[in-house]
Amino acid sequence: MPKPIPTQQLIDSLLKGDRLALARAISRVEDDAEDAARIVQAVFAHTGKAHLVGITGAPGTGKSTLVSALVESYRASGLTVGVLAVDPTSPFSGGALLGDRVRMTGHSGDAGVFIRSMATRRGIGGLAKASAAALLLLDAAGFDRILVETVGAGQAEVEIASVADTVVVVEAPGMGDEVQAIKAGLLEIADIFAVNKADRKGAARTVAALEMMLETGGASAQTILHHGQRLEMGAAASETEAAGGWSIPVLKTVAISGGGVGQLRDALEGHRAWLGESGALAAGERKRLDHMLQTLVQAELLARMERALSPELRRNLVEKMQGRQIDPYSAAADLVKKL
Amino acid sequence: MPKPIPTQQLIDSLLKGDRLALARAISRVEDDAEDAARIVQAVFAHTGKAHLVGITGAPGTGKSTLVSALVESYRASGLTVGVLAVDPTSPFSGGALLGDRVRMTGHSGDAGVFIRSMATRRGIGGLAKASAAALLLLDAAGFDRILVETVGAGQAEVEIASVADTVVVVEAPGMGDEVQAIKAGLLEIADIFAVNKADRKGAARTVAALEMMLETGGASAQTILHHGQRLEMGAAASETEAAGGWSIPVLKTVAISGGGVGQLRDALEGHRAWLGESGALAAGERKRLDHMLQTLVQAELLARMERALSPELRRNLVEKMQGRQIDPYSAAADLVKKL
Repeated sequence: MPKPIPTQQLIDSLLKGDRLALARAISRVEDDAEDAARIVQAVFAHTGKAHLVGITGAPGTGKSTLVSALVESYRASGLTVGVLAVDPTSPFSGGALLGDRVRMTGHSGDAGVFIRSMATRRGIGGLAKASAAALLLLDAAGFDRILVETVGAGQAEVEIASVADTVVVVEAPGMGDEVQAIKAGLLEIADIFAVNKADRKGAARTVAALEMMLETGGASAQTILHHGQRLEMGAAASETEAAGGWSIPVLKTVAISGGGVGQLRDALEGHRAWLGESGALAAGERKRLDHMLQTLVQAELLARMERALSPELRRNLVEKMQGRQIDPYSAAADLVKKL
Repeated sequence: MPKPIPTQQLIDSLLKGDRLALARAISRVEDDAEDAARIVQAVFAHTGKAHLVGITGAPGTGKSTLVSALVESYRASGLTVGVLAVDPTSPFSGGALLGDRVRMTGHSGDAGVFIRSMATRRGIGGLAKASAAALLLLDAAGFDRILVETVGAGQAEVEIASVADTVVVVEAPGMGDEVQAIKAGLLEIADIFAVNKADRKGAARTVAALEMMLETGGASAQTILHHGQRLEMGAAASETEAAGGWSIPVLKTVAISGGGVGQLRDALEGHRAWLGESGALAAGERKRLDHMLQTLVQAELLARMERALSPELRRNLVEKMQGRQIDPYSAAADLVKKL
């Protein structure tokens, strides 16, 4: 086992952009190590510079390949890129499926790219807490662009909308009817749509369907839906609208050959510029920090609950419940009283 | 507006199997109404009889059609069926995509079938709490079989494994590589695999791939993986293993024409019988009640947090965070101290 790097040295090295220090620091927030809070506290003043891009979509759309192509495109224009692949799909094994694939794609010799994957390890809220902290660390280490990749569908999309400045939703041709239905949810978080595998049959139809969905939403409904997550903060929403809406582009990409990836990068840079001009960037950051605050408070409360509930007490209550001597609501009230 | 039914009358009617009372009672737990806890408390003694079947899988596999065909098959053998379609994919709009489709499939005139959909409405834990309570209500109303349908992938699968006696994972041919990867997670919760749309090209290959995955897991690894969620309770796992493992079948179905659906129903009944003989049924119920207890305690703690955090206090902290005057961890610690 390598000797652990002292916390202060880790912090100093990370702020200089040292990759090993960054990797270790992420591990410490992931493991909820004793010095995790101190590390985040120390680097927080150096965050807020990176453009945070969320990339999500259903399985089979080729998200990982697109992320890899996008990294290449950013690198070609001289920008450094951090990638966080968040995998909420394997809670039991703790595997990190996305990251393994991303890692294989040939950026391993490039100091301007840092790739990390993260899977569900703990209970509710654990992944959200660790990934929010990891994004701060990547930001503080000086990466210009940070890509957060997550597999849809479900709660993961909500999370990505909460941590990113800009959200790319990836679609692919011919994914079946049910996918269409789910788009209703994705529509609400997408800043950019990428129809990947656009050389396949049905790509034009998928693009047309998305464009129709965006149009039929109508200009104002679209803005409301699109910024649904920002409406939670009244001020943010009005700032955004005052500056004029963002028109959501539907782009075609063929990630495997790099087709359309330059245009996607341009659209991302365009959205970033729009965010800055419209005031939405600052509003989005407030939203993100508020979300992180909630996540941390929740995680702390749940951790306290775990510590307070002795296994015996819990087992005892469960047995009573099974015997129908006590109902779940009364059992829960009992436990809450004991906290 | 119809006059609200008094709580006691609602409870009495629900226990007699009255559909309207059941529908109203589910709405009250969903809305977290004042009498929600009282209703669940009153009916809890009458629960524990239904076979709870979870049905999950990626978008596009035809889950909803399969659920509908399965309902028909159960009805043909004289069993009553409750269906709860849980949709965690549309947190913003509160829409209930699955339910709308299920409802259209022609069981509406049958008193032996009750279909309800439920979408994410509140924050973290809200859907889990409401759906666990709704299952108890369906059980108390006397349905023989209860199907819980949820769209994968992600956290939803963990939830379904926590609330069901038996989990069916639905696959379909030709869903791409990434789906294969996700199966690693699904393998851990499946009691039965259904390869739906089995009349399509590639069905045999999908079946073979799943069977190989089950075999290469090896008999003991398979049992461990398969009962991964039950290992959390030591007693449950050993009981299950002592009685001999369940061999996970991979079945072909063509839900739209009813092909293979009888065999799926037989496999479900077979698993139910196995659960009873092996002691896994009682262990599973303990696991489920323990999970519900945790869900309720978490929901209560989070609700308290929401009430305790004034918007001003939160806004104030977020502004300080944005100005880098305070970091998220210190801000969260501040808030927790105030609770």
